[in-house]
Amino acid sequence: VNLILLEPDEMRHDSTARLSDTRAAHVRDVLQAGTGDVIRIGVVDGPRGTAIVESIDDQGVALSCSLHDPPSPRPAVDLLLALPRPKVMRRLFAQLAALGVDRILLTNAARVERHYFDTHVLTPACYRPLLVEGLQQARETQLPRVSVHRQFRVLVEDVLEPPTSSTTRAVAHPGAGRRLHEVVGAGRASRVLLALGPEGGWNEFELALLESRGFVPISMGMRPLRSDTACVALLALAHDAVAAQGARPPDPAAVPARDGLVMTSHT
Amino acid sequence: VNLILLEPDEMRHDSTARLSDTRAAHVRDVLQAGTGDVIRIGVVDGPRGTAIVESIDDQGVALSCSLHDPPSPRPAVDLLLALPRPKVMRRLFAQLAALGVDRILLTNAARVERHYFDTHVLTPACYRPLLVEGLQQARETQLPRVSVHRQFRVLVEDVLEPPTSSTTRAVAHPGAGRRLHEVVGAGRASRVLLALGPEGGWNEFELALLESRGFVPISMGMRPLRSDTACVALLALAHDAVAAQGARPPDPAAVPARDGLVMTSHT
Repeated sequence: VNLILLEPDEMRHDSTARLSDTRAAHVRDVLQAGTGDVIRIGVVDGPRGTAIVESIDDQGVALSCSLHDPPSPRPAVDLLLALPRPKVMRRLFAQLAALGVDRILLTNAARVERHYFDTHVLTPACYRPLLVEGLQQARETQLPRVSVHRQFRVLVEDVLEPPTSSTTRAVAHPGAGRRLHEVVGAGRASRVLLALGPEGGWNEFELALLESRGFVPISMGMRPLRSDTACVALLALAHDAVAAQGARPPDPAAVPARDGLVMTSHT
Repeated sequence: VNLILLEPDEMRHDSTARLSDTRAAHVRDVLQAGTGDVIRIGVVDGPRGTAIVESIDDQGVALSCSLHDPPSPRPAVDLLLALPRPKVMRRLFAQLAALGVDRILLTNAARVERHYFDTHVLTPACYRPLLVEGLQQARETQLPRVSVHRQFRVLVEDVLEPPTSSTTRAVAHPGAGRRLHEVVGAGRASRVLLALGPEGGWNEFELALLESRGFVPISMGMRPLRSDTACVALLALAHDAVAAQGARPPDPAAVPARDGLVMTSHT
């Protein structure tokens, strides 16, 4: 934990807050903070700053907060993920929040087992604390927005906004294919929406539907990876590709965008 | 499991093999293979191919193997990793093997707790099956070579070969810094040796020693990540950067290599 996150309603009007749960135990036992010490804090979906420990005992911790840093911008990456096994999904939430994802769209697909959707891992009561754990690790405050979609086609056709030139859409598919960096570099977009299928891959219908909505097939090579490994790897590549867009002059060696894919008539 | 891996001594001279452990259970219960079916197999550090199921029952599976595909080249990425907590290290082995690492050099550092080295997770009896699991997931046969180094300075000064121009050396350090792709692109090397520190980071002495041996500091941004997340993310970037070297014409926008770092007088 590199920052203690407070819920907005925990912050009183006089900028004090009182913790009595595992966060209080963390401040006391791991940070070993005493009265007068200063710790790093943040507010969920809000600013960051520091807090002075006003009192600390077995009952909890009283903080006097100073939120001097504005919230960082929301991450520039969205993830459309075919729901993995509940055990894997559970392990992923904190890592997704730590790496930085704006929206997590969890979807059905032909090769997703239906009963995966019945798990309590998809309830906010289960995943919200995991997301907060990831944010506390990464010293961030912007909570990913999670939504669950049992109908893949409805999600892609009706829920997703039409493609725009400001977002590169990419669909990961095992086997040979273009690199994500290449596709993002060609599109010159400042955001990435990444679609990652089940371990067995998208089926032909799903892939065609995604392509018709502007998703460009990309690959990380020939190795089939576990969903959680693939997800972390792809998010790292997506963030790096977006950062490269900001940092680099235009690259004449990049492959040009294919019309109708990166930008479609829906724009 | 996308391929069943055999140990070299399990393959008889007549190209038959007999399995009776969890692999036999996998062939029977997950693949639901029957007599005459063909499955994907490989030999540890050897070739890949297919096998015909000659017989299958509760006692085991008899295979007749045909190893027609040569071994893939060893991965172009080595990892020098400050030993994380045993629980995290245990979770990492399969993912490292799946992503592809040639050598895994596990090292001490100032911010690594000494007792981490006493864990059974560092015994081949524990980690070898985990590495094999990762290879079976990724359909690969090249087992990472693991070594454990209790003295960081001895490792860096005496064990590591001198830097060469064919390998980019990069050390991950939290905070602002160059991107790995930039450093690999500038070095034009075909291999990467990646050094990843403890969650608290390398200390100044360690960082200076690594830099003196040709490691260029790189960063994935400002978010402190858990060791396992950082490791998977960095390996994905390293493989992608090496793949980009092979795929792309020279990039005039790349930042030139800093003499004495990417290539030193030791070459």
